[in-house]
Amino acid sequence: MRALLPGHGASRGSALGRARVRLPHVLEVAEQHVRPDQIDDEVGRLHAAVEATRAEMHSLRARLHGALAKEVGEFLDLHALLLDDPELLQGLDELIRTGRYTADYALRLQRDRLAAVFDGMDDAYLKSRMDDLDHVIGRIHAHLHQRAPDAPAVAGEILVSDNVAPSELAELQQHGVVAVVTAAGSALSHSAILARSLHLPLVVGNAQALQKINDGDVLLVDGATGEVVVDPDPDDLRRYRERLREAAREARELGRLRSKPSRTRDGIDIALWANAESLEDVANAHALGATGVGLYRTEFLFLQQRELPSEEQQFQVYRDLVLGMGGRPVTIRTLDLGADKADRAGLVVGDEENPALGVRGVRLSLAHPGVFDTQLRAILRASNYGPVRVLVPMVSGREEMLEVRRRLQRAALQLRKQGHEIAVQLELGAMIEVPAAAIALHGFVDVVDFVSIGTNDLVQYLLAADRNNDALGELYSPLHPGVLRLLRHVIRTGAEHDIPVAICGEIAGDAALAPILLALGLREFSLHPATLLEVRKAIRDVDFGDLQARTDKLLQARDRAGIERWLKAAVAS
Amino acid sequence: MRALLPGHGASRGSALGRARVRLPHVLEVAEQHVRPDQIDDEVGRLHAAVEATRAEMHSLRARLHGALAKEVGEFLDLHALLLDDPELLQGLDELIRTGRYTADYALRLQRDRLAAVFDGMDDAYLKSRMDDLDHVIGRIHAHLHQRAPDAPAVAGEILVSDNVAPSELAELQQHGVVAVVTAAGSALSHSAILARSLHLPLVVGNAQALQKINDGDVLLVDGATGEVVVDPDPDDLRRYRERLREAAREARELGRLRSKPSRTRDGIDIALWANAESLEDVANAHALGATGVGLYRTEFLFLQQRELPSEEQQFQVYRDLVLGMGGRPVTIRTLDLGADKADRAGLVVGDEENPALGVRGVRLSLAHPGVFDTQLRAILRASNYGPVRVLVPMVSGREEMLEVRRRLQRAALQLRKQGHEIAVQLELGAMIEVPAAAIALHGFVDVVDFVSIGTNDLVQYLLAADRNNDALGELYSPLHPGVLRLLRHVIRTGAEHDIPVAICGEIAGDAALAPILLALGLREFSLHPATLLEVRKAIRDVDFGDLQARTDKLLQARDRAGIERWLKAAVAS
Repeated sequence: MRALLPGHGASRGSALGRARVRLPHVLEVAEQHVRPDQIDDEVGRLHAAVEATRAEMHSLRARLHGALAKEVGEFLDLHALLLDDPELLQGLDELIRTGRYTADYALRLQRDRLAAVFDGMDDAYLKSRMDDLDHVIGRIHAHLHQRAPDAPAVAGEILVSDNVAPSELAELQQHGVVAVVTAAGSALSHSAILARSLHLPLVVGNAQALQKINDGDVLLVDGATGEVVVDPDPDDLRRYRERLREAAREARELGRLRSKPSRTRDGIDIALWANAESLEDVANAHALGATGVGLYRTEFLFLQQRELPSEEQQFQVYRDLVLGMGGRPVTIRTLDLGADKADRAGLVVGDEENPALGVRGVRLSLAHPGVFDTQLRAILRASNYGPVRVLVPMVSGREEMLEVRRRLQRAALQLRKQGHEIAVQLELGAMIEVPAAAIALHGFVDVVDFVSIGTNDLVQYLLAADRNNDALGELYSPLHPGVLRLLRHVIRTGAEHDIPVAICGEIAGDAALAPILLALGLREFSLHPATLLEVRKAIRDVDFGDLQARTDKLLQARDRAGIERWLKAAVAS
Repeated sequence: MRALLPGHGASRGSALGRARVRLPHVLEVAEQHVRPDQIDDEVGRLHAAVEATRAEMHSLRARLHGALAKEVGEFLDLHALLLDDPELLQGLDELIRTGRYTADYALRLQRDRLAAVFDGMDDAYLKSRMDDLDHVIGRIHAHLHQRAPDAPAVAGEILVSDNVAPSELAELQQHGVVAVVTAAGSALSHSAILARSLHLPLVVGNAQALQKINDGDVLLVDGATGEVVVDPDPDDLRRYRERLREAAREARELGRLRSKPSRTRDGIDIALWANAESLEDVANAHALGATGVGLYRTEFLFLQQRELPSEEQQFQVYRDLVLGMGGRPVTIRTLDLGADKADRAGLVVGDEENPALGVRGVRLSLAHPGVFDTQLRAILRASNYGPVRVLVPMVSGREEMLEVRRRLQRAALQLRKQGHEIAVQLELGAMIEVPAAAIALHGFVDVVDFVSIGTNDLVQYLLAADRNNDALGELYSPLHPGVLRLLRHVIRTGAEHDIPVAICGEIAGDAALAPILLALGLREFSLHPATLLEVRKAIRDVDFGDLQARTDKLLQARDRAGIERWLKAAVAS
C-alpha cells in the first residue's frame, strides 16, 4: 500500500529501487514512543517476535546432529532459558505499557538494565554470558521486523538504515546502490557532504523509515525534498519521470556554465581551482574553466612502485601536468605521506601509535632531505613549462617554512649552475591543516606566497576526531563553531597580509555549503572538477555583500544546529 | 685536564658524576666545522678510526670457528671490502679538507651520498647492502670517539648526548642518573619542561659536549648556568659544595612559603590547585596551602582490577579524598580512558588506528552510559562530605556538556529519591583540550561552571604531534605562538563570562614559565604538589600589572625563539 514518509533531503537526485533494510544494533535504537491506542498492538508485536525467536531456536536445535548437537546445543539451551526468563519478558511488557515505548526501544532499555546487572557480577564466566543475552535480544529484534540478519545491499537497491558511516558511502555506490535513506542523521554531517560529492541521493532524518519500510519494498526517493514513497502509484512514477527530465535539463544548464565566470550576483569573482590526481582531471579542469590546478597530489608517484621515483621520472609527470593546463597555474603539493604509508614508498618511519599525529607531510620530507630535494628539483625543472606553485603539507610554523624555502633556493641555484632553465620565481605556499599553524599564521605570512586550508585534516585535529573512525559518528564535522571561527581567522589574516587563501578540503566542493564559506570571506575554492559547475552555480546565485552582512551571526552560532539554521536563513533570503 | 664547556641551563641543580657519552646515530650528526689549522688533525683522527675499525674486524674474523666462520665471515669480508673502498675514504678526506667539516659530519655526508646511490639501484639484493654500509660507518663513528657501542647509563652517572627524548627522562632518573648534558636542545623544549618537573639537572646547547667529553670523565654540571666542567679542580669542587649549601638554603626558604599566599608583588592572588593521584598527594596539597584539588584522576580505579569499580567502591575513594582536603574544593575528573587502555578496564572499544583521535574521555563515557552514571552517582554521594566539582575530559562542545548535565541532574534526582543526602549543587566543568572546544568556548559558557585547560593534550592536537612520539623531537611544544594565542583566547573568554579558567598541564607546574601564563592572564594554576612552592615563589617574584603590559608583545612572537626572547626580557626587568 502506498505510503509517503517525510524526511530531510541531504543529497539531491531521484532514485527508484527496492529497499534493503539494515536494522541498527539494539544498543543504538533511539527512544521512540507509540500512541496510547497503539500499545496493545506493540505488545502483540513483541510477543510475536519472541514466539518466532523461540520457534527458530527449536527448529535449529532439531536440526543438530552428533557432536555439534552437544556443543552448540548447550548454548541454544542457555538461549532458550534466557528467552523464557520472566524478568526479561515482563520487564518488556511493562516498559511498553508504562513508558509507551516502541518494542524496539523497550528491548534496548531492558538490555541495558540486564547489562548493568551482568556488569556488577564478580564472576568472569557469568559476565561473559552477556554475549548470549545480546544474541537472543538481537534475534528478537530481527523478528520484530520480520527479517533475516543483514545481507549487503546489491545493485539497484536503496539502503534503508538508522545511519550511514562516511566510509561506507563510496563502497555502496560502487556496489550499485542507487540511494540511501536514514532514520537519523543531519544534512550537514560528514556523510551528507560526501554523498553530495559522490552525487548519491541521500535522505536523512526519515524517522519512520525503519518502522514502515520492509526489505524488498519498492521505494521512490527524492534526495532534494527528503520524501520517500513506499509502493509508488502511477502518479508517483509519472512525477519521477518528470524529475528525471528536470534533472537532465539542470545538467544541460550546468553545462552552459562551463564558459561562464564564477561571479556572485554583486560581481565578486571567485577563483575555482581544481584538485587533480590525473591528467584526465587536468583536462576536465581546463575544459571547465578552472582557475588552475589548486592541488596536485604527488603521493601516487611514490606508491606505484617499490623504488623511489627518480628526478627525471617526476619531472616528466610534472611537466605534462603543467603543459595540460596550458598556461594556467599548477599547484604541486610535495609528498604527503605518513608512517602508515611511508614504508610502501621505501621510506623508513618507526611504528607510530598515532600516525595521524606523527612524522608525515613536510616532517617526513625534512627527515629525508635527499628525497625532498629530488622532488623540489623535479618541480623546479617543470616550472620552465608554465607557472608552477609549490604547496607544502603539514606545516607547523615559521621554522619549517624557512627550512623549505632555503632548500628550494639552494636547489634552484644548483640547477642553474648545472645549466637547467628554470622559472625566475616559484610561488611557495603552505597547507594549513595543523591547528597551531592556522592560529599563528601571522608568524609566517612573510615567508609564504599563498596558503591553502586542508580542511579534511584540519577538522580532524581541531575536533581530535579521526575522520576514518566511524565510531565517532557525528563528531567529525567541518561545521563546528570552532572550525568556522578558525577558517574565518585564517581568511582574514591572509587578507590583511595580501596572502591568497584557498580551501581545498571536501567542504569546498559542496555547493550546499558555499554560502557559509563565502560568508567567511573565502574567495578561492579548490575542488574536484566533478563538483566545479555546481559550486559555480551556487556562487552565481548569491550576493557576496549580503553574505558578509551575515558573517557575525554565523560566527555566533553555538553548535551545528545553529549553523544549520543560519544556512537555511541565508539561502531563503 | 680541566676544561670548561659552556651551555644553557635548562633545569636547575648541581651534579657531580662520571660521564656516560651516548653518540648520536650517524644520520643525526649535525653540521660542524673545524678551524683550518685543525684539518690535518681531523683527517688523522678519521684515519685512526678507520684503522681501528679494520683491526677490530680482523680480530673478530680470527676468533670465528666452524659454521659460524662461514656464515658470519661472509659478511665480515663484505664489510672489510666496504672499508677498503677508495670511494668511501677518499671522499671523506676530501670533505674534511674542502668543507672543513668535522670527521663526524663528513662521515654523515658521505653516508648520505652512498645511500642515494644504493637507493637508485634496481636490484633488491644490492639495495639491502645499505645495512652493511651503515654498520661499517657506525663502527668508524664509534672509534672516532674511542669507545664501544652504547651501554646504558647507571646510577651516579651523567648522561652526555646529542639530545634527550622526553620519554627517557623519568627512566634515567629512576636508574639514578644525576644529570643530563645535551649538545642540542632548547630550555623551552618539552624535555626541559619535564626535567624541571622531575628536578633533574639538565644542560642543553652544550655544543662541544660530544667532542670534548669522553666516557668516564668526571663532570661537574651546573643546571642553572649551563656550565659543565670536565675534570674539576679543587676550586671547582669547593664552589660545588657551596652551591649545594645554597640549594639547601633555597629549599628552606621555599619551605617558608608553605604558609604564605600565592600573591604577586602588586597584590594579585593566584589560585594554586593541586593535581592529585593519591591520598598522599592530597595530604601534601593540604599542607602546602593549595586552593584545593584541581584535578583528581579516576583512571587508576578502573585499571587496577579487571572488573569495573562499583558505585560503593568509587564512593569510598572519593569521600576519603574530599575528607582529606578538609573543606577545600576537590575536582574529580570523570573517566579519561581511550581505546588504548579501555580494554583493560573491561570497556569495549574497537581497534583504532589513531587512539588519540578516537573514542576517549567523555566520548567513551557517553558510549557506556551505565558506567558513566555509576561514576556520577558515586561523585554525587561524596559531595555530601565537602565541596566537590566534576570535571569532564575531552569535551568537544555544547551538545556533550548538555548531555552530561542532564545525566548529572537525573542521577542527583534518583539519589535523592533513594534517600541519599547530596550537596544542593555541584559545579560542573569542562576540560579544554579539544582545540575546537577551546576556540568555540563562547558556545557553551552558559552550561559550564568552570573550565580547566589540559595543555598536555591540547598541545598535541594543536600541533598534530603525538607527545609520546620521540621522532617528532622538538615539534611538540606548548611554547608555540598558536598555543599561546589560544590559551589567551580561552582565558579571556572565561573572564568575559565570569567562568574561572585553570591550566592543569605540565606547563602550569613549571616555575620558569609562570611569567608567560600570568602574562596571558591566567589566575588559576593546577599542578603537582611537588612543584607548588616553586611556582608560588615565581608568582611572588613578579608584578602582574607589569606582565599584562607585555601581553601584546608576547602574542606577537612568531616562533619559539621569539617567545624565549620575550621570557628573558620579562624576567630580567
